[in-house]
Amino acid sequence: MTPLHFWLEFGSTYSYLSVARIGALAARHGVPVVWQPFYLMPLFIEQGMHQGPFLPYPNKINYMWRDLERRAARHGIAYRKPSTYPPNSLPAARVALVAAHEGWCQAFAEKAFALHWTEDRAIGSDDNLDTALRSLGKDPAAVRAQAQSPQNKDALKAQTDRARALRIFGSPSFVVDDELFWGDDRLDDAVEWAAAR
Amino acid sequence: MTPLHFWLEFGSTYSYLSVARIGALAARHGVPVVWQPFYLMPLFIEQGMHQGPFLPYPNKINYMWRDLERRAARHGIAYRKPSTYPPNSLPAARVALVAAHEGWCQAFAEKAFALHWTEDRAIGSDDNLDTALRSLGKDPAAVRAQAQSPQNKDALKAQTDRARALRIFGSPSFVVDDELFWGDDRLDDAVEWAAAR
Repeated sequence: MTPLHFWLEFGSTYSYLSVARIGALAARHGVPVVWQPFYLMPLFIEQGMHQGPFLPYPNKINYMWRDLERRAARHGIAYRKPSTYPPNSLPAARVALVAAHEGWCQAFAEKAFALHWTEDRAIGSDDNLDTALRSLGKDPAAVRAQAQSPQNKDALKAQTDRARALRIFGSPSFVVDDELFWGDDRLDDAVEWAAAR
Repeated sequence: MTPLHFWLEFGSTYSYLSVARIGALAARHGVPVVWQPFYLMPLFIEQGMHQGPFLPYPNKINYMWRDLERRAARHGIAYRKPSTYPPNSLPAARVALVAAHEGWCQAFAEKAFALHWTEDRAIGSDDNLDTALRSLGKDPAAVRAQAQSPQNKDALKAQTDRARALRIFGSPSFVVDDELFWGDDRLDDAVEWAAAR
């Protein structure tokens, strides 16, 4: 089966919807998902979006919150507007990359996003990361030490380089062979694309 | 039935998909559509998007063309990448407002967009407008004179004021009661929202 590469940034609001949906959806179509956590902010800055795609635009950001609430309801996903936006996502991305190398990125991302979006724990905070890690039976101190290692920091920079090479400019992004899909709105299209290869 | 107000800007790429889809989709759900042509550029400028949402971002705009092509194919909509982007849409918006007042905006928009997106006639050009008007049995010279009248120019400014008051920041936008939906990706949601009122 052709895999779907799921490029996810932990500070991205719409990525929450995809993280919550992709497991069941891809499984239903028999599509393997490769979880590709990365850190998007350097690409935003390079592309002239110094504050990301929403923050400078009051109408757009207000709309985003309402839209997220409606879409979460439509998909049956728990939703509570986080008090911090944008959150500092870098620590979460580093932990997720450790998790990806060890094969438990999906479980970690599902939990870390859900805590941020239902219990208002800032996604990159020690509290959120440790709670998510403990729920998976991991040793928070040990994983966070791995996450902060120079090797892992370099590996995350290499992920961002890969994302740049793939012409990724936002999150969530989905890559199937050479085909790029952007946004939770394209998750279903991307899964169907992979299933049809 | 609760009507759906369709706010459309003739220079918007994704609006083509909605213009091509909304007639049949809304009819299937028994939802009346109020066509609301407007001119979006002043709102972009007010909101700090001086070149619109795509032009400053090469990766995003390249993605947009590929995405439009894929989505058009998915919906069975004819697609040929126009050679001019962004087109000057103001003359088309003025004609469309005349058409809206007289009840033939849908027919005009469908034709004007289709000519732009299949025959590469720039949407606001005399050629495009006249061809669309003639296909509807209208007198191009008479309609364009109405479109250029001070009254109609003022009416279009008033439309943009209404869009601003509705917190619209892009096109296509759909408004059902106080609920705003943005983007061709939300057309189906908006129609279902209206049908459920």
